[in-house]
Amino acid sequence: MTRQIKLGAFLPGGGQHIAAWRHPGSPADGATSFEFHKQLAQTAERGLFDAYFLADNLSVGLGGREGGNAKIAGFEPVTLFAALAPLTTHLGFIATASTTYEEPYTLARKFASLDLLSNGRAGWNVVTSAGDDTARNFNRDKQPAHADRYARAHEHVEAVKALWDSWEDDAFIRDKQTGRFYDTDKVHDIAYKGAHFSVKGPLNVPRPVQGHPVVVQAGQSEDGRRLAAVSAEVIFTAHQNLASAQEFYRDIKARVNTAGRNPDHVLIMPGVAPFVGRAEEEARAKYQQLNDLILPEDGVAFLNGLAGGTLDLRGYPLDGPLPLSDETEGMKSRQALIRQIADEHGFTIRQLYQWVATARGHYTVVGSADQVADELEEWFGNEAADGFNILPPWLPGALDDFVDLVIPELQRRGLFRTAYEGQTLRENLGLPRPVNPWTAARASLQAAE
Amino acid sequence: MTRQIKLGAFLPGGGQHIAAWRHPGSPADGATSFEFHKQLAQTAERGLFDAYFLADNLSVGLGGREGGNAKIAGFEPVTLFAALAPLTTHLGFIATASTTYEEPYTLARKFASLDLLSNGRAGWNVVTSAGDDTARNFNRDKQPAHADRYARAHEHVEAVKALWDSWEDDAFIRDKQTGRFYDTDKVHDIAYKGAHFSVKGPLNVPRPVQGHPVVVQAGQSEDGRRLAAVSAEVIFTAHQNLASAQEFYRDIKARVNTAGRNPDHVLIMPGVAPFVGRAEEEARAKYQQLNDLILPEDGVAFLNGLAGGTLDLRGYPLDGPLPLSDETEGMKSRQALIRQIADEHGFTIRQLYQWVATARGHYTVVGSADQVADELEEWFGNEAADGFNILPPWLPGALDDFVDLVIPELQRRGLFRTAYEGQTLRENLGLPRPVNPWTAARASLQAAE
Repeated sequence: MTRQIKLGAFLPGGGQHIAAWRHPGSPADGATSFEFHKQLAQTAERGLFDAYFLADNLSVGLGGREGGNAKIAGFEPVTLFAALAPLTTHLGFIATASTTYEEPYTLARKFASLDLLSNGRAGWNVVTSAGDDTARNFNRDKQPAHADRYARAHEHVEAVKALWDSWEDDAFIRDKQTGRFYDTDKVHDIAYKGAHFSVKGPLNVPRPVQGHPVVVQAGQSEDGRRLAAVSAEVIFTAHQNLASAQEFYRDIKARVNTAGRNPDHVLIMPGVAPFVGRAEEEARAKYQQLNDLILPEDGVAFLNGLAGGTLDLRGYPLDGPLPLSDETEGMKSRQALIRQIADEHGFTIRQLYQWVATARGHYTVVGSADQVADELEEWFGNEAADGFNILPPWLPGALDDFVDLVIPELQRRGLFRTAYEGQTLRENLGLPRPVNPWTAARASLQAAE
Repeated sequence: MTRQIKLGAFLPGGGQHIAAWRHPGSPADGATSFEFHKQLAQTAERGLFDAYFLADNLSVGLGGREGGNAKIAGFEPVTLFAALAPLTTHLGFIATASTTYEEPYTLARKFASLDLLSNGRAGWNVVTSAGDDTARNFNRDKQPAHADRYARAHEHVEAVKALWDSWEDDAFIRDKQTGRFYDTDKVHDIAYKGAHFSVKGPLNVPRPVQGHPVVVQAGQSEDGRRLAAVSAEVIFTAHQNLASAQEFYRDIKARVNTAGRNPDHVLIMPGVAPFVGRAEEEARAKYQQLNDLILPEDGVAFLNGLAGGTLDLRGYPLDGPLPLSDETEGMKSRQALIRQIADEHGFTIRQLYQWVATARGHYTVVGSADQVADELEEWFGNEAADGFNILPPWLPGALDDFVDLVIPELQRRGLFRTAYEGQTLRENLGLPRPVNPWTAARASLQAAE
């Protein structure tokens, strides 16, 4: 079969853009409205998206501002996705959950439950949780060190996968006549012992419909790439241009190969924030309409937040240039990235925060359906992407635009499905179902006899 | 309004009775079938039950047997209930979750999410988790001591309630015009510091629709009663006869009063396992049909399990009497209870395990709708119960029987609702919505000015 684009939909009810909730077409309470999330899921399924994706945090991260962030309070992702599953039939659900503050047993269990009730449509976005604010919600004063978080994450994923395998696929007999409910030979303690976790098992949920829910990752750091190479099946990533995306794509595929895995079974999906119009002009107007809704204080605070609090722009005119670096304290790497964007485009402070706020580091595309499809096709055809995580800047409008305008164009080009290929998320993504190691070991033993 | 009976429905998909899955009318895979749980929820709602209740374990507890227990693997309760919520409109959902192995932040969050997406229909059954098998799934060798588990539970409930209160009800402004999304004065750190937990807050979910999801408890021990007196709003309990239920009821109501709470706002709901027929004979036949499905080895193992492994009955004839206590090693308190039941009824070993297996310590009622209603009315009218947790021994048949035969009789007597009174679980149970302490403090301050 011809290789086709895979698509995730990143749909926080409050919208991706910091002013999304102020858009005249968006419900102001979208972040906490179940009905609104239901509408988004059904639109994504109408668009034949592979999966609905949600990021997550284990703290509110308020800062001092009163606006600018509709994502501070909303649904826990697995609970929300469980509720959306019976209202959809093919859409996958990729929920973020933390290896830093959740236990493997409870995490394995909730994803196995979601997979079971959705008939095989669950995915787990594996993250480590940074930040002292989050640590303080979990009995700690400070966040664990980066390397510790990743060491823990490696063990966590191993333990979770072992729990998912603790029952073999055919362990349940359920023979009413003999009264045998399960086969004692086909359920296993995992007896996991690591430096961070010790988990006996077995899990109290049968093996997931998909074998394992799809394992997703989004870390960009060296530690993140290492974890992705050994365990991820889908990788979400953020790049501002083709060259950067290509570097990442080739690096990951090489690492996966070195780890002894098939690079075709690890899908790399950069984030794209699309503003789509029937013509380029209409798209530009949509971009400007949304960005004009950013309160200047929110925009400036947002830039400062991205720079780790090192970019004090108070007193500088919004329609003037970004002050020279030596006028602000210390030049950190994220501040350098912000400056680079400003210099590349010749942006004023206002233009800069509008550009950056739009996609929070992801790639923003503004244009007609044809132009957007051209961009996606270029990345997809040139070792930069196996698919994309679409981040509609406001909801539901920008999602509707993508589904109604861009999807048909991608289909016309033969780049995207016209019907779901399978039932499970794994089938639609074209990923193999993991073999159960206990079953495999028994088969080898029998073959050797 | 006249006082009426409240009803919970205890509906594990695999059935309550150890042979339930072998019943010709039960699906053998009920424990892991989402469609079956959906059918049960919709039947419970047709019967105007207050809530669907699920117990929980954080390990499989396999033992060595191959049958006899369809509950070893199934859904995590909150995930399952989230999926059932949009498919129902008034039924409450009371999920069990552990204070021993879950963190207050994640637990508060998942119940707040369930409450939000169900429009105020969530309840939390607060438990501590015993057993070394469970401890070994969470990085420990042995279970924490009973007293430690309860000390931790007290703190846990305090922290969870404080998290639910961290946003005031009217904290969200969502004014598109001014860009103010929330009121910084109406969101609060909880800064909880205990011996077991330290939680900063605020929660990243708005205050639940119900203020707090309904807090439920089921502990019978001295520690359990103490915790219930200060925090529970509904108490599930197990009694074999009226006198025992009355002792418990009066004791709890007195303790609640001593704790400075209103005893009318703590509902006591003993478990009842009903076998209902159009006449008593039919009910008896249903009882016998189900019990004849218990494999003798499962029945004997079940008795031994209840006695904490001290009751070795191998070699004794099933249709003979329970051997004298000195023929078995050690006389433990649960073994004493088993012997008491055998002596009271003059049971053989087979009759004994049939009786005990039926309800696992709960009250079994076998009779016509009229006879069952008589029993419930007697307990309800005589300080033994404010309602009942109905445990249909097999599913869906015994639930259907209760809904189709007993509910109409209770309604005829004016003892049960003919329509839901409210939207939320709390409203249907007649429990007040908790006041937010921050809001209350501001109101007192303003009144004093």
